[in-house]
Amino acid sequence: MTTNKQIHLVSRPTGEPTTSNFALIEAAVPELQEGQVLVKHHFMSLDPYMRGRMNDGKSYAVPQPLNTVMGGGTVGEVVDSKNPTYKAGDKVVGMGGWQQYSVVNANAPGALRKVDTAHIPLSAYLGSVGMPGVTAWYGLIKICTPKAGETIVVSAASGAVGSVVGQLAKSRGCRVVGVAGGADKCGYVVNELGFDACIDYKAHADAKSLYEALKEATPDGVDGYFDNVGGPVLDAVLSRMNAFGRMAICGMIAGYNGEPIPLKQPQLILQSRLKVEGFIVSEHMEVWPEALKELGTLVATGKLKFRESVAHGIESAPEAFMGLLKGKNFGKQLVKLV
Amino acid sequence: MTTNKQIHLVSRPTGEPTTSNFALIEAAVPELQEGQVLVKHHFMSLDPYMRGRMNDGKSYAVPQPLNTVMGGGTVGEVVDSKNPTYKAGDKVVGMGGWQQYSVVNANAPGALRKVDTAHIPLSAYLGSVGMPGVTAWYGLIKICTPKAGETIVVSAASGAVGSVVGQLAKSRGCRVVGVAGGADKCGYVVNELGFDACIDYKAHADAKSLYEALKEATPDGVDGYFDNVGGPVLDAVLSRMNAFGRMAICGMIAGYNGEPIPLKQPQLILQSRLKVEGFIVSEHMEVWPEALKELGTLVATGKLKFRESVAHGIESAPEAFMGLLKGKNFGKQLVKLV
Repeated sequence: MTTNKQIHLVSRPTGEPTTSNFALIEAAVPELQEGQVLVKHHFMSLDPYMRGRMNDGKSYAVPQPLNTVMGGGTVGEVVDSKNPTYKAGDKVVGMGGWQQYSVVNANAPGALRKVDTAHIPLSAYLGSVGMPGVTAWYGLIKICTPKAGETIVVSAASGAVGSVVGQLAKSRGCRVVGVAGGADKCGYVVNELGFDACIDYKAHADAKSLYEALKEATPDGVDGYFDNVGGPVLDAVLSRMNAFGRMAICGMIAGYNGEPIPLKQPQLILQSRLKVEGFIVSEHMEVWPEALKELGTLVATGKLKFRESVAHGIESAPEAFMGLLKGKNFGKQLVKLV
Repeated sequence: MTTNKQIHLVSRPTGEPTTSNFALIEAAVPELQEGQVLVKHHFMSLDPYMRGRMNDGKSYAVPQPLNTVMGGGTVGEVVDSKNPTYKAGDKVVGMGGWQQYSVVNANAPGALRKVDTAHIPLSAYLGSVGMPGVTAWYGLIKICTPKAGETIVVSAASGAVGSVVGQLAKSRGCRVVGVAGGADKCGYVVNELGFDACIDYKAHADAKSLYEALKEATPDGVDGYFDNVGGPVLDAVLSRMNAFGRMAICGMIAGYNGEPIPLKQPQLILQSRLKVEGFIVSEHMEVWPEALKELGTLVATGKLKFRESVAHGIESAPEAFMGLLKGKNFGKQLVKLV
């Protein structure tokens, strides 16, 4: 009998999660039923949205139930199948969760998808050619609607989403300015990803200093902002928005103890006639085929670069996740399981 | 020689305007040049946007220059004409400003428009069938996109814009909830205008109380919000927004000393996947014909009700304007000049 190590959520964090919120469980892999597939996970995805799901309150995502496997995206290999569509050796993307193996009812729509690994590395299907990539594509293309010559700003610019936003905007002829934490990340964003500039928010302790740096980097103002963080960065960019600017709201950090961080100057939404729109990519499945086609082609041809932070072993997942929430990762955070 | 009494802006207010910011000037009406028309104003419009124009800083409107006639909408009668399109006796709408007469280069596009007063009172062209009415129409129809059965909330509900928003939303089968200041205004909004409910924000000193009143009035949440005020009312409505709700941002009061009032929970824009859009109706001239046609028909047939606060005489304009900013008016604020 194969043992399946899993991470369960056993209590809900208040503020930052700690290792005590999680437990490592050893379960048995059950017998396959007709239609089911057994997937051995190669990589698990760790994503900021998972923190929201750990709360019990009203949010867009259904709360993660306690004492069950943490949910999340996975890529892996079919090792056993009672489903005619899948055979051992197939590489697949799914929502297998924080565990080594998953048993999937592969006939359920969207449960499992075979992927080509000849030109695209398997892990990329959790990043640039997966949910984070489509998130970037939707918010940029459908909300920020970039036009050549415009200025686009993106926060968490070296991350799984931000890095794709910036490169897609560059490919559409925009001036692209990133915001990231630390000189290393900013250097990567400019030198490797080809952004026009990147602002290290950690180097600007107060709002005025951050605003001045942004002003210098965006001499013609800002036409589109892809927001992954909210808070002081959002305040600063809001002050630089041009008339009729667009803001895609994709992520919002909270203040200490999970308190919301107020938006300082909401009157600018009126004064600059802005459109501000929050979105969740899983509610826009209609764009996935078009987005994945562009993202897959760009990655396969080396035109879309990405970076990964890889933790090793299922046991490392809680610690890696806590690091992700503090920005300790550099690029897409993965856990490698094989 | 005809004397033309005018109100000039002579200094810029800090915070609330005072009478000392204005001066009454007596000027001569100049000789008409070829193409010009002399209009005797019957009514002047006083509108909240004028306060923004009194500032010198960055705003959407060009600042009102000092020591010239305050700009603003007017309706009146042609009393002399050197333009073949206009003759004495024609009733016209224009931007004549705070004065008794204006000389208009009537060939300039949009400078003057003849109106029918057989079925629509002349003053209505400054209200429900004018800029405030089209403002209501644009924000409601184009941004809030109301569907039958949805709940629409509008602030400053008894005012020139809010009263039209609510009645248009009712005509489209929505549940409509107003927010207004005082029992009189709320009674009018429900009993005369036909809103389903109205919340007197003055009866709710703290945020929790205001939220609870709003919750009771919007048992199914809020799908569209037309915001004329910002501040605590915006915070309260934001907390009641349903997923995929739309917020049209049309007006924002400031705090003491003109300081912006922060938005307390911007993360709700993401959590509820909202679209928040600021707009200025003068930038959407393409909708005016369609909007004015509907509004004119509704007023002419008695289906769109409105109320006016009328001050008398050009000298009363500064005081009436200061009252408008404090919500002392009840319905559209006008100054009657004849």
